[in-house]
Amino acid sequence: MHRILMRTVVFDFPGEAHDAARDFWQVALAAGVRRGTTNPEYHVLEHPAALGPVLVQHLREGASRLHLDIEADDTGAEVARLVAAGAVEVERIEDWIVLRDPGGLLFCVVPADLDSDFTSFARTVGT
Amino acid sequence: MHRILMRTVVFDFPGEAHDAARDFWQVALAAGVRRGTTNPEYHVLEHPAALGPVLVQHLREGASRLHLDIEADDTGAEVARLVAAGAVEVERIEDWIVLRDPGGLLFCVVPADLDSDFTSFARTVGT
Repeated sequence: MHRILMRTVVFDFPGEAHDAARDFWQVALAAGVRRGTTNPEYHVLEHPAALGPVLVQHLREGASRLHLDIEADDTGAEVARLVAAGAVEVERIEDWIVLRDPGGLLFCVVPADLDSDFTSFARTVGT
Repeated sequence: MHRILMRTVVFDFPGEAHDAARDFWQVALAAGVRRGTTNPEYHVLEHPAALGPVLVQHLREGASRLHLDIEADDTGAEVARLVAAGAVEVERIEDWIVLRDPGGLLFCVVPADLDSDFTSFARTVGT
Protein backbone atom coordinates (compact mmCIF):
# COMPACT_ATOMS: atom_id res chain seq x y z
CA MET A 1 0.00 0.00 0.00
CA HIS A 2 1.13 3.53 -0.73
CA ARG A 3 -0.26 7.06 -0.71
CA ILE A 4 -1.12 9.34 -3.62
CA LEU A 5 -2.38 12.89 -4.15
CA MET A 6 -3.07 14.73 -7.41
CA ARG A 7 -2.34 18.36 -6.72
CA THR A 8 0.02 20.17 -9.11
CA VAL A 9 -1.40 21.73 -12.28
CA VAL A 10 1.10 22.28 -15.11
CA PHE A 11 0.37 24.53 -18.09
CA ASP A 12 2.54 23.44 -21.04
CA PHE A 13 3.12 26.02 -23.77
CA PRO A 14 5.37 25.72 -26.83
CA GLY A 15 8.01 28.29 -27.78
CA GLU A 16 6.02 30.94 -29.53
CA ALA A 17 3.06 30.89 -27.13
CA HIS A 18 4.86 30.49 -23.82
CA ASP A 19 5.70 33.99 -22.66
CA ALA A 20 2.31 35.59 -23.30
CA ALA A 21 0.48 32.60 -21.81
CA ARG A 22 2.72 32.52 -18.71
CA ASP A 23 2.18 36.24 -18.17
CA PHE A 24 -1.56 35.82 -18.62
CA TRP A 25 -1.84 33.08 -15.99
CA GLN A 26 0.26 35.08 -13.56
CA VAL A 27 -2.27 37.92 -13.83
CA ALA A 28 -5.30 35.60 -13.98
CA LEU A 29 -4.33 33.83 -10.76
CA ALA A 30 -3.06 36.99 -9.01
CA ALA A 31 0.27 35.22 -8.55
CA GLY A 32 3.93 36.03 -8.43
CA VAL A 33 6.28 34.18 -10.73
CA ARG A 34 9.66 32.55 -10.18
CA ARG A 35 11.74 30.72 -12.77
CA GLY A 36 13.05 27.31 -11.81
CA THR A 37 16.78 27.09 -11.12
CA THR A 38 17.39 23.36 -11.55
CA ASN A 39 14.72 23.18 -14.29
CA PRO A 40 14.63 26.61 -15.97
CA GLU A 41 11.98 25.46 -18.46
CA TYR A 42 9.52 25.75 -15.56
CA HIS A 43 8.10 28.84 -13.91
CA VAL A 44 6.41 28.50 -10.53
CA LEU A 45 3.35 30.69 -10.00
CA GLU A 46 3.77 31.92 -6.44
CA HIS A 47 0.70 32.11 -4.18
CA PRO A 48 -1.80 31.57 -7.00
CA ALA A 49 -5.56 31.77 -6.46
CA ALA A 50 -5.73 27.98 -6.52
CA LEU A 51 -5.90 25.11 -4.05
CA GLY A 52 -2.50 23.70 -4.99
CA PRO A 53 0.73 24.43 -6.86
CA VAL A 54 0.60 25.78 -10.42
CA LEU A 55 3.55 25.57 -12.84
CA VAL A 56 4.08 26.81 -16.39
CA GLN A 57 6.38 24.71 -18.58
CA HIS A 58 8.10 25.96 -21.73
CA LEU A 59 7.78 23.12 -24.26
CA ARG A 60 10.34 22.70 -27.03
CA GLU A 61 7.65 21.45 -29.38
CA GLY A 62 4.06 20.33 -29.53
CA ALA A 63 0.74 22.00 -28.88
CA SER A 64 -0.39 23.89 -25.79
CA ARG A 65 -1.83 21.59 -23.17
CA LEU A 66 -2.44 21.18 -19.49
CA HIS A 67 -1.35 18.24 -17.37
CA LEU A 68 -1.63 17.06 -13.80
CA ASP A 69 0.91 15.46 -11.50
CA ILE A 70 0.00 12.59 -9.21
CA GLU A 71 2.35 12.57 -6.24
CA ALA A 72 3.14 9.16 -4.78
CA ASP A 73 5.26 8.05 -1.85
CA ASP A 74 6.14 4.95 -3.94
CA THR A 75 6.28 5.97 -7.61
CA GLY A 76 7.15 2.46 -8.81
CA ALA A 77 4.10 0.93 -7.14
CA GLU A 78 1.91 3.78 -8.38
CA VAL A 79 3.02 3.44 -12.01
CA ALA A 80 2.40 -0.31 -11.85
CA ARG A 81 -1.08 0.29 -10.42
CA LEU A 82 -1.97 2.86 -13.09
CA VAL A 83 -0.63 0.72 -15.96
CA ALA A 84 -2.75 -2.17 -14.65
CA ALA A 85 -5.73 0.22 -14.73
CA GLY A 86 -5.15 1.11 -18.39
CA ALA A 87 -2.45 3.80 -18.58
CA VAL A 88 0.59 3.50 -20.85
CA GLU A 89 4.07 4.56 -19.77
CA VAL A 90 5.49 7.13 -22.22
CA GLU A 91 8.85 8.22 -20.82
CA ARG A 92 10.92 8.84 -17.72
CA ILE A 93 12.45 12.27 -17.07
CA GLU A 94 14.67 12.32 -13.99
CA ASP A 95 12.42 10.79 -11.30
CA TRP A 96 9.15 11.73 -13.04
CA ILE A 97 7.22 9.16 -15.05
CA VAL A 98 5.07 10.40 -17.95
CA LEU A 99 1.97 8.30 -18.67
CA ARG A 100 -0.92 8.46 -21.12
CA ASP A 101 -4.49 7.80 -19.97
CA PRO A 102 -7.00 5.72 -22.02
CA GLY A 103 -8.40 8.98 -23.45
CA GLY A 104 -5.00 10.03 -24.76
CA LEU A 105 -4.10 12.66 -22.16
CA LEU A 106 -0.61 12.85 -20.70
CA PHE A 107 -0.05 13.06 -16.95
CA CYS A 108 2.85 12.45 -14.58
CA VAL A 109 3.62 10.40 -11.51
CA VAL A 110 6.15 12.23 -9.34
CA PRO A 111 7.72 11.63 -5.91
CA ALA A 112 5.55 13.02 -3.15
CA ASP A 113 6.43 16.21 -1.34
CA LEU A 114 5.77 14.82 2.14
CA ASP A 115 4.47 18.04 3.64
CA SER A 116 1.46 18.57 5.86
CA ASP A 117 -0.97 18.88 2.91
CA PHE A 118 0.19 15.52 1.56
CA THR A 119 -0.23 13.95 4.97
CA SER A 120 -3.70 15.47 5.31
CA PHE A 121 -5.13 14.87 1.83
CA ALA A 122 -3.32 11.84 0.35
CA ARG A 123 -5.28 8.61 -0.11
CA THR A 124 -3.98 5.11 0.49
CA VAL A 125 -4.16 2.82 -2.55
CA GLY A 126 -2.75 -0.48 -3.75
CA THR A 127 -2.39 -3.79 -2.01
CA MET B 1 -13.16 44.08 -6.21
CA HIS B 2 -14.24 40.46 -6.23
CA ARG B 3 -12.91 37.07 -5.20
CA ILE B 4 -11.69 34.16 -7.33
CA LEU B 5 -10.42 30.61 -6.84
CA MET B 6 -9.32 28.08 -9.45
CA ARG B 7 -10.21 24.68 -8.02
CA THR B 8 -12.23 22.33 -10.22
CA VAL B 9 -10.42 20.10 -12.71
CA VAL B 10 -12.52 18.85 -15.64
CA PHE B 11 -11.43 15.97 -17.89
CA ASP B 12 -13.16 16.31 -21.28
CA PHE B 13 -13.39 13.15 -23.37
CA PRO B 14 -15.20 12.69 -26.69
CA GLY B 15 -17.73 9.95 -27.37
CA GLU B 16 -15.56 6.98 -28.18
CA ALA B 17 -12.97 7.64 -25.46
CA HIS B 18 -15.20 8.78 -22.62
CA ASP B 19 -16.24 5.63 -20.80
CA ALA B 20 -12.81 3.99 -20.57
CA ALA B 21 -11.16 7.26 -19.60
CA ARG B 22 -13.79 8.03 -16.94
CA ASP B 23 -13.41 4.55 -15.47
CA PHE B 24 -9.62 4.92 -15.49
CA TRP B 25 -9.67 8.21 -13.56
CA GLN B 26 -12.11 6.78 -11.05
CA VAL B 27 -9.61 4.01 -10.28
CA ALA B 28 -6.56 6.28 -10.56
CA LEU B 29 -7.93 8.73 -8.00
CA ALA B 30 -9.47 6.06 -5.75
CA ALA B 31 -12.80 7.83 -6.19
CA GLY B 32 -16.47 7.02 -6.37
CA VAL B 33 -18.44 8.23 -9.35
CA ARG B 34 -21.85 9.89 -9.66
CA ARG B 35 -23.53 11.02 -12.87
CA GLY B 36 -24.90 14.55 -12.94
CA THR B 37 -28.69 14.84 -12.82
CA THR B 38 -29.16 18.38 -14.19
CA ASN B 39 -26.15 17.94 -16.49
CA PRO B 40 -25.88 14.22 -17.30
CA GLU B 41 -22.91 14.81 -19.61
CA TYR B 42 -20.86 15.24 -16.42
CA HIS B 43 -19.73 12.65 -13.91
CA VAL B 44 -18.49 13.80 -10.50
CA LEU B 45 -15.58 11.84 -9.06
CA GLU B 46 -16.50 11.48 -5.40
CA HIS B 47 -13.78 11.88 -2.77
CA PRO B 48 -10.90 11.78 -5.27
CA ALA B 49 -7.26 11.77 -4.19
CA ALA B 50 -7.03 15.45 -5.11
CA LEU B 51 -7.15 18.84 -3.40
CA GLY B 52 -10.36 19.93 -5.11
CA PRO B 53 -13.31 18.72 -7.16
CA VAL B 54 -12.72 16.56 -10.25
CA LEU B 55 -15.31 16.15 -13.02
CA VAL B 56 -15.38 14.10 -16.22
CA GLN B 57 -17.33 15.59 -19.15
CA HIS B 58 -18.62 13.61 -22.12
CA LEU B 59 -17.91 15.78 -25.18
CA ARG B 60 -20.05 15.49 -28.29
CA GLU B 61 -17.06 16.19 -30.48
CA GLY B 62 -13.45 17.31 -30.42
CA ALA B 63 -10.28 15.89 -28.90
CA SER B 64 -9.61 14.81 -25.34
CA ARG B 65 -8.51 17.69 -23.16
CA LEU B 66 -8.40 18.96 -19.63
CA HIS B 67 -9.72 22.29 -18.44
CA LEU B 68 -9.90 24.28 -15.24
CA ASP B 69 -12.72 26.34 -13.76
CA ILE B 70 -12.08 29.67 -12.10
CA GLU B 71 -14.82 30.35 -9.57
CA ALA B 72 -15.76 34.01 -9.07
CA ASP B 73 -18.23 35.72 -6.80
CA ASP B 74 -18.76 38.22 -9.67
CA THR B 75 -18.41 36.37 -12.98
CA GLY B 76 -19.05 39.49 -15.08
CA ALA B 77 -16.23 41.41 -13.42
CA GLU B 78 -13.94 38.39 -13.64
CA VAL B 79 -14.55 37.85 -17.36
CA ALA B 80 -13.89 41.55 -18.02
CA ARG B 81 -10.64 41.36 -16.02
CA LEU B 82 -9.44 38.25 -17.86
CA VAL B 83 -10.34 39.63 -21.29
CA ALA B 84 -8.36 42.78 -20.43
CA ALA B 85 -5.45 40.48 -19.52
CA GLY B 86 -5.53 38.75 -22.92
CA ALA B 87 -8.21 36.06 -22.84
CA VAL B 88 -10.92 35.75 -25.51
CA GLU B 89 -14.54 34.91 -24.70
CA VAL B 90 -15.65 31.82 -26.64
CA GLU B 91 -19.18 31.05 -25.51
CA ARG B 92 -21.67 31.14 -22.66
CA ILE B 93 -23.33 27.93 -21.44
CA GLU B 94 -25.95 28.56 -18.77
CA ASP B 95 -24.07 30.73 -16.24
CA TRP B 96 -20.61 29.45 -17.25
CA ILE B 97 -18.38 31.51 -19.52
CA VAL B 98 -15.87 29.65 -21.72
CA LEU B 99 -12.68 31.58 -22.48
CA ARG B 100 -9.47 30.89 -24.40
CA ASP B 101 -6.08 31.89 -22.97
CA PRO B 102 -3.28 33.45 -25.09
CA GLY B 103 -1.74 29.99 -25.50
CA GLY B 104 -4.95 28.60 -26.98
CA LEU B 105 -6.26 26.63 -23.99
CA LEU B 106 -9.91 26.72 -23.00
CA PHE B 107 -10.98 27.40 -19.44
CA CYS B 108 -14.17 28.50 -17.69
CA VAL B 109 -15.32 31.20 -15.32
CA VAL B 110 -18.15 29.89 -13.15
CA PRO B 111 -20.16 31.24 -10.22
CA ALA B 112 -18.42 30.59 -6.93
CA ASP B 113 -19.59 27.91 -4.57
CA LEU B 114 -19.41 30.10 -1.46
CA ASP B 115 -18.37 27.34 0.91
CA SER B 116 -15.70 27.39 3.60
CA ASP B 117 -12.91 26.44 1.18
CA PHE B 118 -13.82 29.36 -1.08
CA THR B 119 -13.83 31.71 1.90
CA SER B 120 -10.47 30.36 3.07
CA PHE B 121 -8.57 30.16 -0.23
CA ALA B 122 -10.09 32.71 -2.62
CA ARG B 123 -8.04 35.77 -3.55
CA THR B 124 -9.36 39.30 -3.98
CA VAL B 125 -8.72 40.81 -7.42
CA GLY B 126 -9.91 43.72 -9.54
CA THR B 127 -10.48 47.33 -8.70
